[in-house]
Amino acid sequence: MNRVDALRKVAFKEDKFDGYAVFNGINLTYLAGFSGSSALLVPRDGESVLYVYGVNYEMAKAEGAGFRVERVERCENLMEKVAKQSVAFGIKRLAVDALSITNWRALAKSMGSEEKLVADNGVVQELRKIKGEEEIKLLRKAAELTSLGMKVAYETVAAGLKEYEVAAEIEYAMRKQGSGGTAFETIVASGACSAFPHGGCSDRKIRQGDLVVVDIGAAYRSYCSDMTRTLVAGKASEKQKRLYGIVKQAQDNAFATVKANVKAKDVDAAARQAIAEAGFGDYFVHNLGHGVGLEVHEPPTLSPESTDTLAVGNVVTVEPGIYLVGYGGIRIEDTVLVGKAGAEKLTSGPYALTKE
Amino acid sequence: MNRVDALRKVAFKEDKFDGYAVFNGINLTYLAGFSGSSALLVPRDGESVLYVYGVNYEMAKAEGAGFRVERVERCENLMEKVAKQSVAFGIKRLAVDALSITNWRALAKSMGSEEKLVADNGVVQELRKIKGEEEIKLLRKAAELTSLGMKVAYETVAAGLKEYEVAAEIEYAMRKQGSGGTAFETIVASGACSAFPHGGCSDRKIRQGDLVVVDIGAAYRSYCSDMTRTLVAGKASEKQKRLYGIVKQAQDNAFATVKANVKAKDVDAAARQAIAEAGFGDYFVHNLGHGVGLEVHEPPTLSPESTDTLAVGNVVTVEPGIYLVGYGGIRIEDTVLVGKAGAEKLTSGPYALTKE
Repeated sequence: MNRVDALRKVAFKEDKFDGYAVFNGINLTYLAGFSGSSALLVPRDGESVLYVYGVNYEMAKAEGAGFRVERVERCENLMEKVAKQSVAFGIKRLAVDALSITNWRALAKSMGSEEKLVADNGVVQELRKIKGEEEIKLLRKAAELTSLGMKVAYETVAAGLKEYEVAAEIEYAMRKQGSGGTAFETIVASGACSAFPHGGCSDRKIRQGDLVVVDIGAAYRSYCSDMTRTLVAGKASEKQKRLYGIVKQAQDNAFATVKANVKAKDVDAAARQAIAEAGFGDYFVHNLGHGVGLEVHEPPTLSPESTDTLAVGNVVTVEPGIYLVGYGGIRIEDTVLVGKAGAEKLTSGPYALTKE
Repeated sequence: MNRVDALRKVAFKEDKFDGYAVFNGINLTYLAGFSGSSALLVPRDGESVLYVYGVNYEMAKAEGAGFRVERVERCENLMEKVAKQSVAFGIKRLAVDALSITNWRALAKSMGSEEKLVADNGVVQELRKIKGEEEIKLLRKAAELTSLGMKVAYETVAAGLKEYEVAAEIEYAMRKQGSGGTAFETIVASGACSAFPHGGCSDRKIRQGDLVVVDIGAAYRSYCSDMTRTLVAGKASEKQKRLYGIVKQAQDNAFATVKANVKAKDVDAAARQAIAEAGFGDYFVHNLGHGVGLEVHEPPTLSPESTDTLAVGNVVTVEPGIYLVGYGGIRIEDTVLVGKAGAEKLTSGPYALTKE
């Protein structure tokens, strides 16, 4: 119940609301320690209620310790049920983390007035930004599995193989060691497709000399990881080496700035500046990084517009890239923990275009 | 552009609105044939606009043929951009498929009034329910890959293996043959965990005599599939065989009713009745099935409360189950196409508790 207590502490301190309704699936997993619930109602005073449909009810009773678990019956309406309980709790202003407009209106109607609802997706997000000890253990394990997968990528990538065949070997190696599937769709993007940051993994055959962007992430007990290396099938050209050096320098510069109390936009700037100075500023077409936790993309954001400040317990990616349409792309990415003693890369693998 | 034309035809026929804004990622993939866009604005008259952030802009230009592709610049606000264009199109009532309450309000503000927005998540969903020829080809391919994975499950499941080790072999086999990853988290739930419909895939070691629910789905070019078989590690007991027979009978009964113009709830009832008559009605704790397409769970729904009527081009699962807490569970599931000539199972595999 510690996370719910933490939520209470933050959510109710300013008297903006006296109840918090959680509907977002990831927030529910975070707070309930269980992924099969449909809502959680946290009153300022009283026992929280976890709402679960029949399909997951028995699992919730087995796993969702510490909550009053309510089964949502067929024909029952979840919004009405949550509203009714909110009224019973005497909640006057109910914060809601996330709802579609249709469900928002249904909940408002059941509560009697839209004035009783406050859209607030920030409180749980803020809590989730700071990873606890147990979460860091799981993130570390996910990153280890990912690093293992990258090792297999270096052993596997070769001309003649299809992109998805490389992905198959990587995913198999991670899975056999205990990965709970992938944190996102594996990217193996070769040749001209590597110039699309979210390109690949098709049935394209890798050709000699191709750049191959390998962007992978194992998941471990619902925690994600994220790592990219760019390889060359065969021998790297001078141009490929030069571009690689620029991206690597950008990553080094950015990583060197990562620590608590640094502005996220300054970390982004450290990488962006290195790439711009080399003349490729227009070809780094995405943010430097993002938080990693139960979601592979979550706050904080490392971008020029970010208002985040890094804090101990953040886990973020650092992933500069250069993308030349028609030629190919290079990205280097690690998942990084902001620790008390400074930044630590959780993922590890060679910074090299070829196996050696 | 056929799908957008189809949307126009349905969306604007009643004059309820004169513009349609699509934000849901799957709806965007369906309409734009491309998964990297952030919004699509379809006016009653004029060329539709596809909104894409820098990270996916070049890929959109390469793949998103037939649309005016607008790049969303850093610091630009997508809601403001869509509102501005809507005003330029002269749109007076803009339908919106899906938005968080926060974005809904931002869009309303930019449009000048909430009265100009209409929440409508039904029009695209209705279109997506009826699969076209090309979609059926992809769903068929995904189902074939899944059936291959199930073959591997029968060859692999054995006492002593961990649940995730079985998953690794299944996923590897599907992936090597071209699966684009899994449509959902693979379930290999053994022993008492098989009594949780969404249980497994943990590091639990399968034991002799365990029921093992294997629920898997390959994805092919973003199209999903879904299939379950329940196996026994070793020799099946009489009780296991009896329960299996009941679930199989329920699936047979339900499958026999699947055809166009039949009410979805009647298909559910056919299975539910068979299980109830055998005395296990309280232990079939979920719906009979759901639509399968770009999402693994999408309309129509096969449940006692469903208001759907089956139609040619629907692709749905038929998946009855019995779950005995503390003992184990049995589920049998196939993905089924509602065709002109009747129902066709797209997935195929033995209906057997053991390899033979």
